[in-house]
Amino acid sequence: MNLKQLSLGVCLLLFTGTFQFSQAQEISAMQAPQVVSPDIAANGSVTFRVYSPKANEVAVNGSWMGFRETLPLTKAENGVWEVTIDPLPSTMYHYNFFIDGVAAIDVTNPHALRDGTRYASLLMIPGDGAKVFQQNDVPHGSLSKVWYDSPSLGMKRRMYVYTPPGYDSSNESYPVLYLLHGAGGDEDAWSSLGRANLILDNLIASGKAKPMLVVMTNGNAWQSSTLTMAPGVTPPTRETYAQWSGKFEKSLVEDVVPYIEENYQVIKEKDSRAIAGLSMGGGHTITASTTYPGTFGYIGVFSSGIFDPNTNMDEMKNKFIALKDSGVKEYWVGCGVDDFVMESNKRLLSVLDETGFEHDYHESAGGHTWANWRDYLAIFSPMLFK
Amino acid sequence: MNLKQLSLGVCLLLFTGTFQFSQAQEISAMQAPQVVSPDIAANGSVTFRVYSPKANEVAVNGSWMGFRETLPLTKAENGVWEVTIDPLPSTMYHYNFFIDGVAAIDVTNPHALRDGTRYASLLMIPGDGAKVFQQNDVPHGSLSKVWYDSPSLGMKRRMYVYTPPGYDSSNESYPVLYLLHGAGGDEDAWSSLGRANLILDNLIASGKAKPMLVVMTNGNAWQSSTLTMAPGVTPPTRETYAQWSGKFEKSLVEDVVPYIEENYQVIKEKDSRAIAGLSMGGGHTITASTTYPGTFGYIGVFSSGIFDPNTNMDEMKNKFIALKDSGVKEYWVGCGVDDFVMESNKRLLSVLDETGFEHDYHESAGGHTWANWRDYLAIFSPMLFK
Repeated sequence: MNLKQLSLGVCLLLFTGTFQFSQAQEISAMQAPQVVSPDIAANGSVTFRVYSPKANEVAVNGSWMGFRETLPLTKAENGVWEVTIDPLPSTMYHYNFFIDGVAAIDVTNPHALRDGTRYASLLMIPGDGAKVFQQNDVPHGSLSKVWYDSPSLGMKRRMYVYTPPGYDSSNESYPVLYLLHGAGGDEDAWSSLGRANLILDNLIASGKAKPMLVVMTNGNAWQSSTLTMAPGVTPPTRETYAQWSGKFEKSLVEDVVPYIEENYQVIKEKDSRAIAGLSMGGGHTITASTTYPGTFGYIGVFSSGIFDPNTNMDEMKNKFIALKDSGVKEYWVGCGVDDFVMESNKRLLSVLDETGFEHDYHESAGGHTWANWRDYLAIFSPMLFK
Repeated sequence: MNLKQLSLGVCLLLFTGTFQFSQAQEISAMQAPQVVSPDIAANGSVTFRVYSPKANEVAVNGSWMGFRETLPLTKAENGVWEVTIDPLPSTMYHYNFFIDGVAAIDVTNPHALRDGTRYASLLMIPGDGAKVFQQNDVPHGSLSKVWYDSPSLGMKRRMYVYTPPGYDSSNESYPVLYLLHGAGGDEDAWSSLGRANLILDNLIASGKAKPMLVVMTNGNAWQSSTLTMAPGVTPPTRETYAQWSGKFEKSLVEDVVPYIEENYQVIKEKDSRAIAGLSMGGGHTITASTTYPGTFGYIGVFSSGIFDPNTNMDEMKNKFIALKDSGVKEYWVGCGVDDFVMESNKRLLSVLDETGFEHDYHESAGGHTWANWRDYLAIFSPMLFK
């Protein structure tokens, strides 16, 4: 419905009573929508449509389906392919069409998402399950793409900084959550697929989370920013990859934290610094927190753990004991019951258990998905800085 | 080449010596690249490829071609469709594939652009023609998505604010360029397709432009932000569209300018305020500057003009005389020789001529394109605040 309204608004600009505008959209006019898709019914059922008299085969894959599963669309005589799915629970999904096997976003849906090198179309099923990460009519913080010097990596790098509503006109100092993405992602991930800024807007508005900054870095130490190699840096190969080990974590603590504390109104102490990450970012969280005990007072490890089965567990336990002794106010672990990193996650839990490290463990349904990571952030962030 | 490097880097994360990561990219694994596309030769020639044994017809449309023109790809026995085009001049382009007539972005190209409701893949031909809007190794300003209250429109709205390199650590006050998009676009347009932040980074680094803020608003007065109707607002129809006339311009001068001047380190005087816009945004520029003479000292009208042929030209001239008398340091007009708005542009030029309003007119090749608007910004911004 929003989509129809939008198209209508845009079409109107073609000719108006007073002013005659032409469509300034320059991207191929051949993309003008010919069907309505996705068509979301009140009960959460969805109809997908593609117009192609010429295609042999059209299918859809959505995040509510298996990773490699597809559902065929059926062609009608008018050249419109269509499929209707059973009602979906209210939450956020994404999907792709496959036109004769070629992945495509839904050209009639203006909301696309990037996840690393790939794009998909957004599908939001309204209702209670979407409220925490929808753009609601509440005060919104600012989201900034900020460049900083990283002396430890010898390059300029980009990150996203969320500042909460009221930050600009306040004299207060705020706590900071450092929020790390997974392999294949970059500094865009937590605000696009993760909707971290909207989650914080909503939780702050309802009084559930304290106003805080959220710093979303690029965890690929060879990149300066989204999809971009740093100038003069040779891309990692299987042989050279190990040389990058620990470098991002060092740059996070030695470059990013000081930059934030110098340039923003923030509280410069352990109990006002939190760190959390998903998958590879959970690995970064473990490394950064144990290498620099006393830096972070709150720690969240999402769908991750101790990846290497050959880790020297005695050494690891000693590191966790030092971290525990530094004073951690909350150690939170979340993992999906079907997640393929469950073994790594269990290694982390066993270290926490064996060192008597007080922690919360949240085992959710599902696997290695943004649906889980958005939930984990919405559970973890209200625990911070209280 | 960057793409291959990138894929390599990402693939490496599947297994590394110390840590075993899984690809955290959640968007359909079926999108993994099977071919190299776009494949850019040293001479600027480009080969496009699509893997689809099943398709009947694959074609490409690019911004270097006609708006509705397509070029067919040819299928080889291995199921790879391919076409190579003659060398393109160095600059930025975009393109779409059509798989059996269905528009698609290039799934092997991680760089997609949104223009209003549509997406295309980015094609950058390196060289002199791309330098001014490439991400070069120079200091970068910050780009922030900022929400503000618009009392005149009765809603919260979003805009982008570019602050120049050094802004955060400086005690200086800066001048401000208000930069307006065209019909079909929104507050994203000037930073995504327009690359305004990179253009300013590069021009400031080379000393050609003065450090300045650039404020990129949403000119669709019924939207709160990108693609989103403001809460409680009825979308415009052909009948109600006229009621929105002039409302954005009012909100720009009465809401946005005061917000910026209250919350940023900026110089609060006419000669430190510039306004420019493309197409519909050029119309907004003309209306805002003549309705509020004395507000802006620098004015740029890109591919636009006086749209309504029934405008009362005597009234219009009086407005321009009042604007001229307020003291305008630069009035700059740019239009492509093939642009369909040339008649509107000529009406503007005739008003400027007939009122003896000193101005610069830049007539470029081409039409109503982002290639022109990026150029115009790169010509106009160095003239500001000198």
